[in-house]
Amino acid sequence: MEDLISRLAFNPEGLIPAIAQQHDTGEVLMLAWMNRESIEQTLATGQVCYFSRSRNKLWRKGETSGQTQTLIELRLDCDADTILLLVDQTGVACHTGRRTCFYTALRDGTLTEILQPEMPPETLYRPQP
Amino acid sequence: MEDLISRLAFNPEGLIPAIAQQHDTGEVLMLAWMNRESIEQTLATGQVCYFSRSRNKLWRKGETSGQTQTLIELRLDCDADTILLLVDQTGVACHTGRRTCFYTALRDGTLTEILQPEMPPETLYRPQP
Repeated sequence: MEDLISRLAFNPEGLIPAIAQQHDTGEVLMLAWMNRESIEQTLATGQVCYFSRSRNKLWRKGETSGQTQTLIELRLDCDADTILLLVDQTGVACHTGRRTCFYTALRDGTLTEILQPEMPPETLYRPQP
Repeated sequence: MEDLISRLAFNPEGLIPAIAQQHDTGEVLMLAWMNRESIEQTLATGQVCYFSRSRNKLWRKGETSGQTQTLIELRLDCDADTILLLVDQTGVACHTGRRTCFYTALRDGTLTEILQPEMPPETLYRPQP
C-alpha cells in the first residue's frame, strides 16, 4: 500500500484521475478523481471510492444508489499519474441511468446520444463528481 | 465543431483529460490532455493530437516515433469534462515500447509489470506528456 501511494504522482490538490473500466467487456465507464484516502478505502473494502471535487469529500460510489463498483484490479500508468480501475459495475455507472458516462459521440459533425438510460435517473441518487 | 468546443468543460488551464481506447479490442491505452487547438487538429486531420503539459505545446502523437493514433470516434462524458477517444493505435502507445501505458498492476499487494515492451524504447522518440 505505501509502495503504491509513494509511487503515485498526485496533482497539487492531492488528486489523481482514475478511469473505471468494466473488467470483462472493456467498456470505459467513467473518469473520476481519487485522493490518498479514497485509494486506501478502495483497497481496504474492495468497493471503489472516489473523491468528489464538487463536494470536497469522499464519494463511495453507489453508497446511496446501489450502483457500486467492485474492484477487480488497480493499475497505474507509466508516469504513475493516472489510475486504471478494472471493476465490476453493478447496474449503471452514470447518474443519468446509462451504463457508461460516455454516451455522447461526435458523428457526422453532430453530438449524438448513442445510449439510452437503462434506469430512470430519478430513481438514482445523483452523484456530483 | 463549435458545438463540441462550446459544450466542453475545460479546466482553468484550458485543458481536458482524454482517454485513448483501442476501438476494437477495448484496451485503454493512455490518458493525456487536450486543449481547444489539439481537438481542432485531431478532428481536422483524423490523427490524434494532444497538448503536452510538460512541454507546453501541441503533441502530435507519433509524429516522430511513427506510433500514431488514428481517430475512430470522439465521445464525451455526461459532465463534458472528459473525452474518450476511440482510436486505432499504430504499434505501441507507450514511450516504454509497451502497447499500453497501464502495464503496472497491483497484484497480491505488489506492484507488478504485466506487459513486456514490444519495441525497444530507445528506438522510439520519448514523448514527455
